Amino acid sequence: MDGDRNTLMRQVIALAEENVRSGGGPFAALVVRNGTVIARGANRVTATNDPTAHAEVSAIREACRMLGTFQLTGCDIYTSCEPCPMCLGAIYWGRPAHVFYASTRDDAAAAGFDDSLIYRELDLAPERRKIPMTQVLRDEAARVFQAWKDTTSKTPY
Amino acid sequence: MDGDRNTLMRQVIALAEENVRSGGGPFAALVVRNGTVIARGANRVTATNDPTAHAEVSAIREACRMLGTFQLTGCDIYTSCEPCPMCLGAIYWGRPAHVFYASTRDDAAAAGFDDSLIYRELDLAPERRKIPMTQVLRDEAARVFQAWKDTTSKTPY
Repeated sequence: MDGDRNTLMRQVIALAEENVRSGGGPFAALVVRNGTVIARGANRVTATNDPTAHAEVSAIREACRMLGTFQLTGCDIYTSCEPCPMCLGAIYWGRPAHVFYASTRDDAAAAGFDDSLIYRELDLAPERRKIPMTQVLRDEAARVFQAWKDTTSKTPY
Repeated sequence: MDGDRNTLMRQVIALAEENVRSGGGPFAALVVRNGTVIARGANRVTATNDPTAHAEVSAIREACRMLGTFQLTGCDIYTSCEPCPMCLGAIYWGRPAHVFYASTRDDAAAAGFDDSLIYRELDLAPERRKIPMTQVLRDEAARVFQAWKDTTSKTPY
């Protein structure tokens, strides 16, 4: 089992190295089901002008497209680095069975990818954050959730 | 100024309602620059089998594509609901100037979209989370960040 894990993680590490060589960031990820790689992702933020194009987000999107579902039930994610808060959010929405990672958030920070600010900001009330977040028209927006509650054909998730 | 904010937020609320009617989730977002809407997003998770297709992530991706940049400097985000941790992560990576939101996370939870688990999990060490997260091959992965440090042509962000 450890052998399988190591083999898969070595694929991720090789993919991340290759991504650096091709102008991407130093991150890669795989989605694996029943021992088979079903999707790959690598950081293409600057290459594609997409701040959400992290390795894990990209691999999750690709895996769901492959599987025709919005849930990664029974899948494992292998990522070259501990996921950032955005990718952790994507992981919890996708609900894979297990995540394997190699480098830590501190290793990433030492390489210039520091997400500690994001962890800290998420724990603050919106109005206390460095990017100001201001509430407007809460009462008027209530009708959106009411419309959702009144919809009978919806897919809950 | 409040008038402008309210006008823009009413557009977001209308977009979210329209999205519910067309089979999407009850969430929408806009990216605005100098008072002009440059991108729209709505929750299409179940409609497109993409767990990352939240309104804010979609609007951010679209805005960056429009602007040809991976940073939303000087842009505001208007969203029908307080962003979830994934979308907050995307917001911090995209770095807009200001976020305006209408419904709160509690309003969302009452409608069946509860992200409190994700906030709690993010504060735990990886090995203590409900989705198990296991570290493997940290030493071998160090060469990826070394390759990044050795790259002279990279775009830092």
